[in-house]
Amino acid sequence: MHCCSKQCLSLVWKDALKNSRAFHRPAYCSQKIATVEPSSPNVRTEIPGPKSRQLLKELDRIQNTGAVQFFADYDKSYGNYLVDVDDNCMLDLYTQIASIPIGYNHQSLIDAVKNENNLSTFVNRPALGCYPPRDWITRLQTSLLAVAPPGLSEVQTMACGACSVEHAQKAMFIAFQRRKRGGAPPTQEELQSCKTNDLPGTPNLSVLSFKNAFHGRTMGALALTHTKPMHKLDFPQPKWPIATFPMLKYPLEDNVRENQAEEKRCLAEVEDLIETWKKKGEPIVGVVIEPIQGEGGDNFASPQFFQGLQDICIQNDICFNLDEVQTGCGVTGLFWAHEHFNLKQPPDIVTFSKKMLTGGFYYRSEYRSQEAFRIFNTWVGDPSKVVLLEAVIKVIKQDNLLNRVTEIGNYLWPEVEKIQKKYPDFLSRVRGLGITGAVDFPSLDDRNKAISSYYQKVYYNI
Amino acid sequence: MHCCSKQCLSLVWKDALKNSRAFHRPAYCSQKIATVEPSSPNVRTEIPGPKSRQLLKELDRIQNTGAVQFFADYDKSYGNYLVDVDDNCMLDLYTQIASIPIGYNHQSLIDAVKNENNLSTFVNRPALGCYPPRDWITRLQTSLLAVAPPGLSEVQTMACGACSVEHAQKAMFIAFQRRKRGGAPPTQEELQSCKTNDLPGTPNLSVLSFKNAFHGRTMGALALTHTKPMHKLDFPQPKWPIATFPMLKYPLEDNVRENQAEEKRCLAEVEDLIETWKKKGEPIVGVVIEPIQGEGGDNFASPQFFQGLQDICIQNDICFNLDEVQTGCGVTGLFWAHEHFNLKQPPDIVTFSKKMLTGGFYYRSEYRSQEAFRIFNTWVGDPSKVVLLEAVIKVIKQDNLLNRVTEIGNYLWPEVEKIQKKYPDFLSRVRGLGITGAVDFPSLDDRNKAISSYYQKVYYNI
Repeated sequence: MHCCSKQCLSLVWKDALKNSRAFHRPAYCSQKIATVEPSSPNVRTEIPGPKSRQLLKELDRIQNTGAVQFFADYDKSYGNYLVDVDDNCMLDLYTQIASIPIGYNHQSLIDAVKNENNLSTFVNRPALGCYPPRDWITRLQTSLLAVAPPGLSEVQTMACGACSVEHAQKAMFIAFQRRKRGGAPPTQEELQSCKTNDLPGTPNLSVLSFKNAFHGRTMGALALTHTKPMHKLDFPQPKWPIATFPMLKYPLEDNVRENQAEEKRCLAEVEDLIETWKKKGEPIVGVVIEPIQGEGGDNFASPQFFQGLQDICIQNDICFNLDEVQTGCGVTGLFWAHEHFNLKQPPDIVTFSKKMLTGGFYYRSEYRSQEAFRIFNTWVGDPSKVVLLEAVIKVIKQDNLLNRVTEIGNYLWPEVEKIQKKYPDFLSRVRGLGITGAVDFPSLDDRNKAISSYYQKVYYNI
Repeated sequence: MHCCSKQCLSLVWKDALKNSRAFHRPAYCSQKIATVEPSSPNVRTEIPGPKSRQLLKELDRIQNTGAVQFFADYDKSYGNYLVDVDDNCMLDLYTQIASIPIGYNHQSLIDAVKNENNLSTFVNRPALGCYPPRDWITRLQTSLLAVAPPGLSEVQTMACGACSVEHAQKAMFIAFQRRKRGGAPPTQEELQSCKTNDLPGTPNLSVLSFKNAFHGRTMGALALTHTKPMHKLDFPQPKWPIATFPMLKYPLEDNVRENQAEEKRCLAEVEDLIETWKKKGEPIVGVVIEPIQGEGGDNFASPQFFQGLQDICIQNDICFNLDEVQTGCGVTGLFWAHEHFNLKQPPDIVTFSKKMLTGGFYYRSEYRSQEAFRIFNTWVGDPSKVVLLEAVIKVIKQDNLLNRVTEIGNYLWPEVEKIQKKYPDFLSRVRGLGITGAVDFPSLDDRNKAISSYYQKVYYNI
């Protein structure tokens, strides 16, 4: 059994198509950039079409193109409709690996780029950690801080998801060692030895992650990632502890006792690992977990599981780090997925990127580095992305999009359940919250056939 | 003895000031953004000034501000002049940690942002690895490929320097293991074990770096970095081999034999480490080195040293990876610093970022991953930065800036040598190529005093 959010997306697509009356070209105004949402998808060629295939051949001389699906025409794309170079207009529920927050060519983003007041922000990328721009604090207040997870008022920007996870990890190590030193400064031996990756300055510490987790592709982030072999094969990695993420049975209402036992077992495993790794001299400084596992199969756990996990972290004085790179920015109907968990206190660290357009992490004050230049790099983010985020957040609030996500989720998942009931041998484990979720097919092959047949149905207008 | 490029920059500043006649406000036109270069610096307050100090206090509620020097007004900055919020106009030779390629608010960059044809590129950041934009190949050809190091025709974009170093490292591991498998596919055991960071899928492999090297701040990049304790302290790191970067004696013409012996000794150490680490079962897959060490003290080695190093890599069938994040984009008078080395064949990998505005790496075909999704992440770079780079490269070519860099270097370093001769107890080891270089002070304290007194001289107009 293999599952993936793409399955769900295809289903939504199918559903949308069912209700569409006609396939016609999206309307573009005379401007270069599309300003009207097409009324439906319109697939004219196989995908990738002839123009994409020609470009693919050319790009392949420059780099590996194995992941390229097609070449897109971003001038013509609008809202949730992505148009490719062969003029195929697709209802896009994958949105650039879940990184487009309010659709293509949203007028508010166009306005933000065209606004003369923002011009120098797009032209001059500063070393933010050293020479922040005049309006940086205001920008942070109207963007990242305006949607900060409840109880968190500090934030560090970074350029991408992996960097956010890496530097959040560093914040954990710093806080752990500071507590261990009990206020004393590092020794000369520590300061010298760390330069050559030696003990005691380079300590034996570990971070706990979960099976099927995805946190990124640089060494420290990849060490926490356990999804597909192609992400990991051949790369040296720290050998850190990995716990089991609960694998719930559906429908939830029929499996209450079993699922409670599964989550209890997973929490016990975490406690056990914390104990074991302390004894073996490579203590766990923190737990990193997605509120909903994305790449690993849209796996959900209950609020009680996350409450229990936070309790374990508090009891052991280690960091509780929620990676909301994929779940943040409203996809669950609340701005942050962990707001569904009723945690007793804010998570210690919340990492973000993708739809937030900038990477970074929120943190509790005790995870602030006391020294300069430790959580740092040349750019530490990009104010031009924060300008865009500011516009995105304004739209989310003005258009009441969080409520809309909840409404869609409330409609969508019961509908998918109905389809599942119709095809019980083919579909299972429907699960979703807001607009994130999945359904399982019996095999990878079945899933691929289904996706492919959706494409074909649109293409041949069946 | 401690050295750093800031020293050199300060000297240039001093020199520039010597020739400036008056301190007056830079001329701004009625537009929001400055369009005229000030005729001289104009420092009106202490730095940071009162407005910067107020903003610092506010920002400190949100994050650690220990590295913040002052808040900048990027609307008012122009060319090499950086204006802060207290209206201090400074001749900026530090250029946002060496990441601004052609000065602030260059008209060509403003035009690129304002160009309607580029609008959707700034608005819609794609998942480049899956859905590249229609014009992506043309963009690559007019930007990154137009300045590719001689003999390299493949390039992978990334968002920042650390990510570039990390993914270049992964390309090395992939190529090494592919050679080891001799064309055979990975085993099922390898595919399964790598998901949990276990042998054999997660192999024991290492990368060789150099003392005083700086390559970035994420775990894999930081493992190669050996400059300041504050970058490294408390972070677990792979224990990989570290060789000695030659520490040359100056003036070079008086120390020919000694310097040759030093470089020979360093190369012998590399050969020795390759042998030792092969025997201990953690073979070195590649050597990563800066053509000129930047953060570690502007340390130069001779072309012969780099030729010898490449020979060793070829003989041992391992990767020769030049990290040009700091030295690329023309600062030495050639577009890439390694073009000064007369290498017998192109380096296997050349990483870049900073002034290139986008990160990434060029590579020889044998370092291309044969499988999709291995050198990959959500964004794999940002086309909007490539749009800016395209403009930068056009300006560099049209304005013949590489020649200008050579001319400045040819003037600058003999002048600094004259100053050194005047103060032999205070200055030593003048070294430079183009506009990158340094001079040493007797101690860190002396250096800081010198820098501080330059600021003061400008402030008090002495």
